[in-house]
Amino acid sequence: MPKLRFSISMSLDGFIAGPNQSVQNPLGEGGEQLHEWALELEAWRKAHGREGGVVNASTEVMEGSLKNIGATMMGRNMFGGEGPWGDDPWEGWWGDDPPFHTPVYVLTSHAREPLAKEGGTTFFFVTEGIESAYEQAREAAGGKDVHLAGGANVAQQYLKARLIDEMMIHLVPVLLGDGERLFDNLAGDTVELESTSAVEAPGVTHTTYRVVK
Amino acid sequence: MPKLRFSISMSLDGFIAGPNQSVQNPLGEGGEQLHEWALELEAWRKAHGREGGVVNASTEVMEGSLKNIGATMMGRNMFGGEGPWGDDPWEGWWGDDPPFHTPVYVLTSHAREPLAKEGGTTFFFVTEGIESAYEQAREAAGGKDVHLAGGANVAQQYLKARLIDEMMIHLVPVLLGDGERLFDNLAGDTVELESTSAVEAPGVTHTTYRVVK
Repeated sequence: MPKLRFSISMSLDGFIAGPNQSVQNPLGEGGEQLHEWALELEAWRKAHGREGGVVNASTEVMEGSLKNIGATMMGRNMFGGEGPWGDDPWEGWWGDDPPFHTPVYVLTSHAREPLAKEGGTTFFFVTEGIESAYEQAREAAGGKDVHLAGGANVAQQYLKARLIDEMMIHLVPVLLGDGERLFDNLAGDTVELESTSAVEAPGVTHTTYRVVK
Repeated sequence: MPKLRFSISMSLDGFIAGPNQSVQNPLGEGGEQLHEWALELEAWRKAHGREGGVVNASTEVMEGSLKNIGATMMGRNMFGGEGPWGDDPWEGWWGDDPPFHTPVYVLTSHAREPLAKEGGTTFFFVTEGIESAYEQAREAAGGKDVHLAGGANVAQQYLKARLIDEMMIHLVPVLLGDGERLFDNLAGDTVELESTSAVEAPGVTHTTYRVVK
């Protein structure tokens, strides 16, 4: 059966972005350290149209995480803004050829026409909440899995609704001390997980969990 | 050179105890799940004078974490109380034959005579703060390493002071949602770590870090 798969980079102390996030610095202070392991990979650079990069134990993990994905979901901040969108709305962080190569369902409070990009990525803006977004994404995925790309707020909503099947945490060995926590707002919700793999790689430990339902 | 080694079990969302901790339930709601991996081990049961138990990938990790330890430090709550101690003070959680088998330096605000137990464990009560405790422990350790056993508050103080050399986090696949966070009160302190090993075992992933100074 197709799965909802969530993956994200997190510091050992639980942050997915550092303090003082802004439009100029969406990762917050120190937050760029959470993504260094990915940015140096040949596999990542290729997917983003760049040359060079290394091959290491993270390569297979990254390739696996992109396999069998038919649709993507994300929060509005990850797309690039909160709306309302206006007449000539900003087209987000992701450039002309976004790395998703699938339909992308953006959770937002403000309706907007779909935004088609190169390489098979079209952003659809969903205002009816997480269950509707997942329904649409699942339908678009045509039997493949749906990837939840972030951020924290949307992930928390899907966790509370017990909709996530598999969670991959790229655990980065740094303590940021402050910032945006991945697992926040979950008081009263104990979630049971089953560890399915742990892969040590340069600058990151990739841990995968099945959510016990 | 002898090291200060800290080890603790933590949920994937960063808690070392669940919500609503009390004297009756020091681990808080759901907190017992963080220790199941250890309690089922033959190595743990033997060290605590019990029979039975299993041998698995955690065994070597636990044996390694006990090796070359010459002294132990802990916070007052981990010993078993805050003081003032009174004339007939409680002797703490750890019974007649505590599992430490070394001198144990307890950080507290209230002076108290040393408390000698069976099997080589004597509790010393230190009121002069973390640096004095570490100095005394290092001296007692006679060239071996010092083990910081917890809890969170004391660990945060040693992290801030940049005194911890090695940190072993037993990462348990559960989201507790609420409780006592290991890495709290560290805003403004970015700590850089270097991952030195990750071992997947039943119900836990053991991750070890060197603190970059």
